[in-house]
Amino acid sequence: MKLDTIRHSLAHIMAHAVKELYPKAKFGIGPVIENGFYYDFDLPATTSDGSGFSVDDLSRIETKMKELIRQNIKFKKRFVSKIEAKKIFKNQPYKIELIKELKEKMVTIYESGNFIDLCGGPHIKSTKEIPEDCFKLTKIAGAYWRGSEKNKMMTRIYGVAFKNKKELDNHFELIKEAEKRDHRIIGKKLNLFTFSELVGKGLPLFTPKGSIIRRELERFIVEEEIKRGYMHIYTPDLARVALYEVSGHYPYYKDAMYPVMQVDEEKLILRPMTCPHHYQLYLDAPRSYRDLPFRLAELAKQYRYEKSGELTGLMRVRSFCLADSHIICQKEMAKEEIKKVLDLIECVSFALGLEKNKNYRYRLSLGDLKNAKKYYQDKKSWLLAENILRDVLIERKSPFFEAKGEAAFYGPKIDIQIKNFAGKEETAFTVQYDFLASKRFNLSYIDQDGSKKEPIVIHRSSIGAIERTIAFLLEHYKGALPLWLSPVQVSIMPIAQRHLIYSQGIKNALEKESIRVEIKDDNETLSKKIREAEIQKIPYVVVAGDKEEKEQKISMRSREKGNLGVISLRDFIEKIKKEIKEKK
Amino acid sequence: MKLDTIRHSLAHIMAHAVKELYPKAKFGIGPVIENGFYYDFDLPATTSDGSGFSVDDLSRIETKMKELIRQNIKFKKRFVSKIEAKKIFKNQPYKIELIKELKEKMVTIYESGNFIDLCGGPHIKSTKEIPEDCFKLTKIAGAYWRGSEKNKMMTRIYGVAFKNKKELDNHFELIKEAEKRDHRIIGKKLNLFTFSELVGKGLPLFTPKGSIIRRELERFIVEEEIKRGYMHIYTPDLARVALYEVSGHYPYYKDAMYPVMQVDEEKLILRPMTCPHHYQLYLDAPRSYRDLPFRLAELAKQYRYEKSGELTGLMRVRSFCLADSHIICQKEMAKEEIKKVLDLIECVSFALGLEKNKNYRYRLSLGDLKNAKKYYQDKKSWLLAENILRDVLIERKSPFFEAKGEAAFYGPKIDIQIKNFAGKEETAFTVQYDFLASKRFNLSYIDQDGSKKEPIVIHRSSIGAIERTIAFLLEHYKGALPLWLSPVQVSIMPIAQRHLIYSQGIKNALEKESIRVEIKDDNETLSKKIREAEIQKIPYVVVAGDKEEKEQKISMRSREKGNLGVISLRDFIEKIKKEIKEKK
Repeated sequence: MKLDTIRHSLAHIMAHAVKELYPKAKFGIGPVIENGFYYDFDLPATTSDGSGFSVDDLSRIETKMKELIRQNIKFKKRFVSKIEAKKIFKNQPYKIELIKELKEKMVTIYESGNFIDLCGGPHIKSTKEIPEDCFKLTKIAGAYWRGSEKNKMMTRIYGVAFKNKKELDNHFELIKEAEKRDHRIIGKKLNLFTFSELVGKGLPLFTPKGSIIRRELERFIVEEEIKRGYMHIYTPDLARVALYEVSGHYPYYKDAMYPVMQVDEEKLILRPMTCPHHYQLYLDAPRSYRDLPFRLAELAKQYRYEKSGELTGLMRVRSFCLADSHIICQKEMAKEEIKKVLDLIECVSFALGLEKNKNYRYRLSLGDLKNAKKYYQDKKSWLLAENILRDVLIERKSPFFEAKGEAAFYGPKIDIQIKNFAGKEETAFTVQYDFLASKRFNLSYIDQDGSKKEPIVIHRSSIGAIERTIAFLLEHYKGALPLWLSPVQVSIMPIAQRHLIYSQGIKNALEKESIRVEIKDDNETLSKKIREAEIQKIPYVVVAGDKEEKEQKISMRSREKGNLGVISLRDFIEKIKKEIKEKK
Repeated sequence: MKLDTIRHSLAHIMAHAVKELYPKAKFGIGPVIENGFYYDFDLPATTSDGSGFSVDDLSRIETKMKELIRQNIKFKKRFVSKIEAKKIFKNQPYKIELIKELKEKMVTIYESGNFIDLCGGPHIKSTKEIPEDCFKLTKIAGAYWRGSEKNKMMTRIYGVAFKNKKELDNHFELIKEAEKRDHRIIGKKLNLFTFSELVGKGLPLFTPKGSIIRRELERFIVEEEIKRGYMHIYTPDLARVALYEVSGHYPYYKDAMYPVMQVDEEKLILRPMTCPHHYQLYLDAPRSYRDLPFRLAELAKQYRYEKSGELTGLMRVRSFCLADSHIICQKEMAKEEIKKVLDLIECVSFALGLEKNKNYRYRLSLGDLKNAKKYYQDKKSWLLAENILRDVLIERKSPFFEAKGEAAFYGPKIDIQIKNFAGKEETAFTVQYDFLASKRFNLSYIDQDGSKKEPIVIHRSSIGAIERTIAFLLEHYKGALPLWLSPVQVSIMPIAQRHLIYSQGIKNALEKESIRVEIKDDNETLSKKIREAEIQKIPYVVVAGDKEEKEQKISMRSREKGNLGVISLRDFIEKIKKEIKEKK
């Protein structure tokens, strides 16, 4: 790709500039990365971890790079013997180390002006191919040579580069937007969740405000699922390791699990998934066709190990609460049940403000029997299951795409792929067809004719992991959550101290209707209080002053539409209640 | 106590009877226990673990005992030297072992008829003091000699004995009642919860029906607490051990905690209590007097190790969900806050059908500064706190009793002592005054005058641990839970298959009002279906036949009052909804 060639050449030009500015610099490597490039330097002039470096230095290097670009320097490729290469790089210990490890007799070097680098290329022909305003140096970081703590810490300089200035600007726009939408920043600003060093990494504590969002989501999904025939249950968040040996997760999934706890003679482990618990409940009594579909659902806490470097706010945590479910049913019922699951998912997505084919789309994730390690070998079952899922999607006329090799070990699945604001797609919810669980756990039912049969299992999420869904919603709405999810729905602002009693009356009336309300009675100006409510993304502001009290009305402001004038409290309450009910 | 003397003498008489019936028997020991006595025998005639013994043998021994009692046998005490004792018991190896271990030179023996036992007494003078119908042999069990697995398994025979036949009968009545109320038996019969060997001991799985009870209780308490100004939050069920080192629980409370899990560089542990998590949220921002009282509440899962022998259904488990709360407030506010907590507890108890001073009473649990290990040494704080709690109880005119040495380490408490049907009392809910937590965790607030002050903490439960509360309710109501807690509230019974559509219509109408409903359309007789609904403790039965369908009405039966005649569906729904709302 041409752009990558430009990016890599810019790495050389950066190194060239560094050489001019810091003649004693030793050079590491300078690869292309997403959106740009970096180069690792050993800079004796600064502190070893680069901390002596400042933004000023970056702009000095950048200026020098632009100078070099304007000189129309040519990139020349040469093959030299290792012996010759060692001579060329005799003052560059890192390059010497790399040359020594090369197996070939001849090595490639690139010369651009008076800068020479050990490099396979490719490169541009001349720096005139690079628009001088298409790149920017972005940051400095410390990085161990070759990634090992045993080696020296070098100074890594990052840059981004695009085809032209417009695309570069666009990139920074996206970053600015991402920062505005970063749920960690929003969560802090709106005081929704926090972490505690004493509690541990990746274990969020929901503040009173954040807990309101979580509770609303949990209640919504439990109600909706019960309405749709799910039996919502409670099972323990841990189990004996033996349970996961039967399920086949242990020891294969061990690295993603928490450590084992020895309690008396039992080896206990926090659960990384809920399925085997639900099967235990199914197995608690003999089941017949009359018990099917057996739809178990649970707000299930699950524990999975994530590397500390990968923990990200509420998006990637070490303990999460999944709106999980397992539907145990006859093969013949699978199609109907999967349809119902997609109905539920579409209903939930709609309530969260997501539009099908705009914010999300379906992916049919298929197995690949050639990969015997990744996929359970049972051709007939795979074919049957894949056809059922495909038929469901075709029948409901949902556009979808197929992805081979994305299925689970035990069967194909339908993934709901959500796009974030930057267009990046990831799996939010999933519906999996499992033909293996019944064999592993001896799940069975007695059919109408008295014969013993094997059911299939559908694993599905609906609203996903509550933590992750909250993170997603905060980014999707930039913190301005819909009314039903807003921690504070109405902020009441008495204009003066004398309106406090009237305001208190309004508060009581709203609270009686279970509307979440605060009174802002601090000694600030009204405009400052309104500004604060905007920052806090509070959907409605009620202003109470002389006029309002006299008329026994209120002045109403909406987060989206601004001032909406004076209305009666009754009308205001009706309006709000309707909006909450409709989840707008 | 006279009764214990009779019980112990009965142990001798039993041994005497065994000697007559099984001349080769070797004798262990025969102490008094609660309600009766036992004696351990080595019976060569039967299998070593007593399994060769049957109920018939028990009644043979009992008959022989009655014969002996009628002979007016006298109990004679004698002091003999150890040498002489060894001669007397030369064929009794267990007695010889005991004699050898005695430090005194002289030992006491008791002779009754031709039975001699090594025994310190006291005993009755003659068997004529024992009413022959005051006792009963109840069961046989295997028991290792002196409780050690290394020793021989002996046959232990248990008996109960009371002053007279009436008291004996009364005892058996209580046991029968206890069995009828045993929540484990009720839970099984009503299919409310279960255990799985693969999941582990003391870790209940709630079935769909049991989960309904739990969800109703949880919703009720969360709603009620939010209404009363609590902020209901979610915090992780685990934390770093360091958190419990700061709180002072670790290592002192270690034996009751789960094992530590090493995750990367962190030592994590499942939480045995919630307080330190809540303090972390308090510490998340600087707090001022305006933030107080800071009332945090949580449906908090907690993990405590219990010995496997002590696990009892839902009553004693290894993981439970506590409706927990911590109120952080000024010292000066403590009284008012504790009052409000007692209001809440009384409201909850009332909703659960418990009457103050009938089903429960207050205990003021005080410290004892003389016990420096058990109680934090701060005389002034103790006095202040104890006076506050006492004042609250006196002011609300709640009868209470004081119990010295029942307080927590960090302050006094008010315990809500619940009586079960047999009159046995235990602590159900508790309100604790804590003057130590602020010091341990550096909790503070800025007062109105700008000075930094130390708040106090009130720990309190309201509905207790959900698992235990369910166990208690099942026993209290013998499974016939009030309507609002009943898993199935209405059972609809079509008289014939042709009434199924009409029944379905009734079901839909009830479900629309969120009433929990089932249709019993199996091919059973109506009376059998009604009987089944009674066993399942379903509060209401609706019968739908020709007459009902023609008049578009229903026939209604109540669990308590039987047939209530024909009414309109609308009236029925209104009645039920009212009853649910009123939690009757």
